Amino acid sequence: MSPSQRQIVIIGGNAAGMKTAARARRLDPAARIVIIERGVDLSYGACALPYFVAGLVPDLDDVRRTNNGTLRDATFFHKVKGVEVRSRCEALGIDRLRRTVRVRDLVAGGEEELSYDALVLATGNRPIVPPVPGIELNGVRPLKSLEDAAAITAAAQPGRRAVIVGGGLIGLEMAEALRGRGLAVTLLEMKEQVLASALDFGMAALVHRELRRNAVELRLGEPLQAIAGEAGKVTGVVTAKGSYPADLVLLAIGVRPEVTLARKAGLTIGPTGAIAVDQRLQSSDPAIWAAGDCAECRDLLSGRPVYVPLGSTANKHGRVVADNLCGREATFPGVLGSLIVKVFDLNVARTGLSEEDAHLLGRDPVALLAPSPDRAHIYPGARPIAVKLIADRADRRLLGAQIVGPGAVDKRIDTLATALTFGATVDQLAQLDLSYAPPFSSAMDPLHQAANALRNKLDGIGASLSPLEMRELLEAGQPLLLLDVRSPAEHAEVRIPGATLMPLGSLRERLASLPRDIEIVPLCKISLRGYEAQRILHDAGFSRVRYLEGGILGWPFELEQGR
Amino acid sequence: MSPSQRQIVIIGGNAAGMKTAARARRLDPAARIVIIERGVDLSYGACALPYFVAGLVPDLDDVRRTNNGTLRDATFFHKVKGVEVRSRCEALGIDRLRRTVRVRDLVAGGEEELSYDALVLATGNRPIVPPVPGIELNGVRPLKSLEDAAAITAAAQPGRRAVIVGGGLIGLEMAEALRGRGLAVTLLEMKEQVLASALDFGMAALVHRELRRNAVELRLGEPLQAIAGEAGKVTGVVTAKGSYPADLVLLAIGVRPEVTLARKAGLTIGPTGAIAVDQRLQSSDPAIWAAGDCAECRDLLSGRPVYVPLGSTANKHGRVVADNLCGREATFPGVLGSLIVKVFDLNVARTGLSEEDAHLLGRDPVALLAPSPDRAHIYPGARPIAVKLIADRADRRLLGAQIVGPGAVDKRIDTLATALTFGATVDQLAQLDLSYAPPFSSAMDPLHQAANALRNKLDGIGASLSPLEMRELLEAGQPLLLLDVRSPAEHAEVRIPGATLMPLGSLRERLASLPRDIEIVPLCKISLRGYEAQRILHDAGFSRVRYLEGGILGWPFELEQGR
Repeated sequence: MSPSQRQIVIIGGNAAGMKTAARARRLDPAARIVIIERGVDLSYGACALPYFVAGLVPDLDDVRRTNNGTLRDATFFHKVKGVEVRSRCEALGIDRLRRTVRVRDLVAGGEEELSYDALVLATGNRPIVPPVPGIELNGVRPLKSLEDAAAITAAAQPGRRAVIVGGGLIGLEMAEALRGRGLAVTLLEMKEQVLASALDFGMAALVHRELRRNAVELRLGEPLQAIAGEAGKVTGVVTAKGSYPADLVLLAIGVRPEVTLARKAGLTIGPTGAIAVDQRLQSSDPAIWAAGDCAECRDLLSGRPVYVPLGSTANKHGRVVADNLCGREATFPGVLGSLIVKVFDLNVARTGLSEEDAHLLGRDPVALLAPSPDRAHIYPGARPIAVKLIADRADRRLLGAQIVGPGAVDKRIDTLATALTFGATVDQLAQLDLSYAPPFSSAMDPLHQAANALRNKLDGIGASLSPLEMRELLEAGQPLLLLDVRSPAEHAEVRIPGATLMPLGSLRERLASLPRDIEIVPLCKISLRGYEAQRILHDAGFSRVRYLEGGILGWPFELEQGR
Repeated sequence: MSPSQRQIVIIGGNAAGMKTAARARRLDPAARIVIIERGVDLSYGACALPYFVAGLVPDLDDVRRTNNGTLRDATFFHKVKGVEVRSRCEALGIDRLRRTVRVRDLVAGGEEELSYDALVLATGNRPIVPPVPGIELNGVRPLKSLEDAAAITAAAQPGRRAVIVGGGLIGLEMAEALRGRGLAVTLLEMKEQVLASALDFGMAALVHRELRRNAVELRLGEPLQAIAGEAGKVTGVVTAKGSYPADLVLLAIGVRPEVTLARKAGLTIGPTGAIAVDQRLQSSDPAIWAAGDCAECRDLLSGRPVYVPLGSTANKHGRVVADNLCGREATFPGVLGSLIVKVFDLNVARTGLSEEDAHLLGRDPVALLAPSPDRAHIYPGARPIAVKLIADRADRRLLGAQIVGPGAVDKRIDTLATALTFGATVDQLAQLDLSYAPPFSSAMDPLHQAANALRNKLDGIGASLSPLEMRELLEAGQPLLLLDVRSPAEHAEVRIPGATLMPLGSLRERLASLPRDIEIVPLCKISLRGYEAQRILHDAGFSRVRYLEGGILGWPFELEQGR
């Protein structure tokens, strides 16, 4: 059989499936390409649904339109992309020996068998639905489909109460969306922090503060136990610590790969629960490929299989599978777990390994937190970002990064993701020729500031404590002299409780007044003056001095304001 | 002599000099560190001066304040940084044998000799002043010092006429600043394009359009011949093509490294006219170092010496020199010529080699232009950016990039600068795990779109013309069928003159109506539909089809609007 007569069957009509189909058509004009989709909506941007709920995307159909406003429906895919779409059809089973898929038409009701030369599983994910009493009540649902988005939006009337179960990406985006609609929002998270698999605790604590600042009732360390209802309608949720009234419950616990069909067909499922694939995205059956949220990825840094379902990866997968189907060798190297999310006025991003990940993997990570303005501090609109860099003590290579702040977080995390991909050291990061002009950056970009601070730490020039480390010392009752080296005006405005004011400009003259028997922790707004003070004190013979990384801007715990 | 008794003399009290001093102090508490500065203002951000003129920075002193508002004056450097600053002192000569610098106090008038163990030249740059008649007239000046900024601002009254000589970074920033103040602005550039050493012509043409849209009278290919005046005051400028009245003339032709002292001392000057240094930034005399705008850099891609004076590089240089002075081996690897500039509502950036550079260096560059929205197209505030990528045909490594548009250009150029630093191929670029969420990017980031389009071009799947190539064909009288595959509504709004409308959705049905004897150039808004149409036509046996790269958004020449 010549390649031009091949029959390609794709199960799943969203990002990965549709990308595979469109690219395969461009590479092989003669192949028959059939897409089987259980739902009615094709190629919609699920990531955009929170923004529809928030009212930022006016029409629900917008999430399945192209750049130029064309609806991506079956007609579009037929006329423009030259592929055949069977919506409302479910793939029931795969006969790998005969290379057929049994398909049921969910509308007409009939069944048929489709032959394939190549089969692509792009079955996506499904939301985790916890097995708790009351889960079936009306008003309880995930945000997965356009129908979910429409139903939640209709229910989200001002003054109503919503409980969001899960502090992941969707939970956080929906907290903002529902607060924006005037609902009272409780966010329930079983772990002690939001974004638990993405951020280290100190960075998540900055997100906690932002959520509380926006009147989200944050309940950490509280697993959902039951959902209460009356007459089939939800009335609240119950945990071990309390119960929370709710007109609306959003299940945002996470998603699992949808691998029912793959499992039934006997394909190898990886340790993450997703379909195991090689770098060409071929499954354990050479005629079957997997792409998008149902496929396992490899972590570029640890080499381990990971499950990070994202539309960006799904699109890359689609291209790789189509290339391989059409005789062009292509591989997908893996992911860094790069994530970004807007949470009210904070932008929150991460890439690579967290400090905790790195410890668990047996590395020796050195981390550093350094906030800076995102552009020249005198340029209007400059906003801070807090950069946490993590590097390996042994070879100084970057291991990961987390950035949180109202400023341009996205730009720096992408630069870091690129640096991580190529095995950059923190020294190389500090020398990158990044673009500079006052509207966009500082002469020392926040990444350069952070990299240099981390180099100083690695080299023993900068001695510092992370906010978490300092809080642990304080809670352990260790005597510390917190030395606020900012100006009196800055100190009067906001300060860490118990800190003593001694402006940096007077420090060299007042050294004699400082005690030598307890550890001194200089701190400032962002860490630069704190570091300078640490060097001055060190040079003056004070032996126990560590500055507070991140200063006031990076401190996620209690602050005193005003007089 | 122990390192702790060393005397470090630094000539120049701006970015590179001050960074060297501060870092050297932190590394060596006992050294005597003296800074000689001819002017009165220390460590000011010259890059911020256009924003003072624009009125965005309210107080001129703000450009020499720290993040927290402290004025960086001699007292600050003494009290906080522990270094000694001699302002209004000029270094007259260096005696390399005796290791002394002769210094004149410009206020008191005396001279003295300062000994050094290490001497750092951080003498910066000086604006090019062309040797034309009238250059000495009042109202003619560069923008270099705080005094320049104050004088220009005072002169920049609404209704007055300014001529800016030079279409480089400062010329463009000042065109915006002076238009913003209500002046009539003429921009005179001797080359046929602005940013001639930075951008290829097609990208510069997008900037030309933006300048004209903002009523800047752009005179390209017109070298300044003379400046006219009356009673010592400027009245206009004269070129071979015309004369232009002016109340104010800004010299923004560029800068040269200030190497008078280095040259007099017999230090090696490099081919760029800047002080030749090794990777440790040591000059031809091992006791003398150079940092910042007076020092030559190496281009990371070509390996050649280049002169790219920037505050970002100056800060990196300062750290490297201080480390070397204090016994810590450090090197500065080089630059990519990364630049960014805001020009009215456009952000304009570049890194690496231009297409023209690459040709001149004997490479075989393949370039591609691809515009996309800077975030999910349905997310409010999404704005386009036009990405030009340049790769080497032989090894598919990236050579350079240029990005122009109202959207987030800075983020992408920094990602590309990082990729270039590590020798990334366009294939690796396409697979980078960049962060994605609708407020920040698209599932296919503009860089992924552009990288994939370039891969298609390299692989012979995508056949395309750059805007410049298409215009050249049209001007040569070559018959082309420009096929606008957008919707009728899009076509009615704005179009390339002469283009025939045939929406992509109807193309497969209307193939028979298309001629086979002339080349067909499908085009759309950004190139995606144009590419799709090219594939459809190719697969239908049309042998001469190339889509227009960049579509309407990337087309810098004439457009027809409305009916």
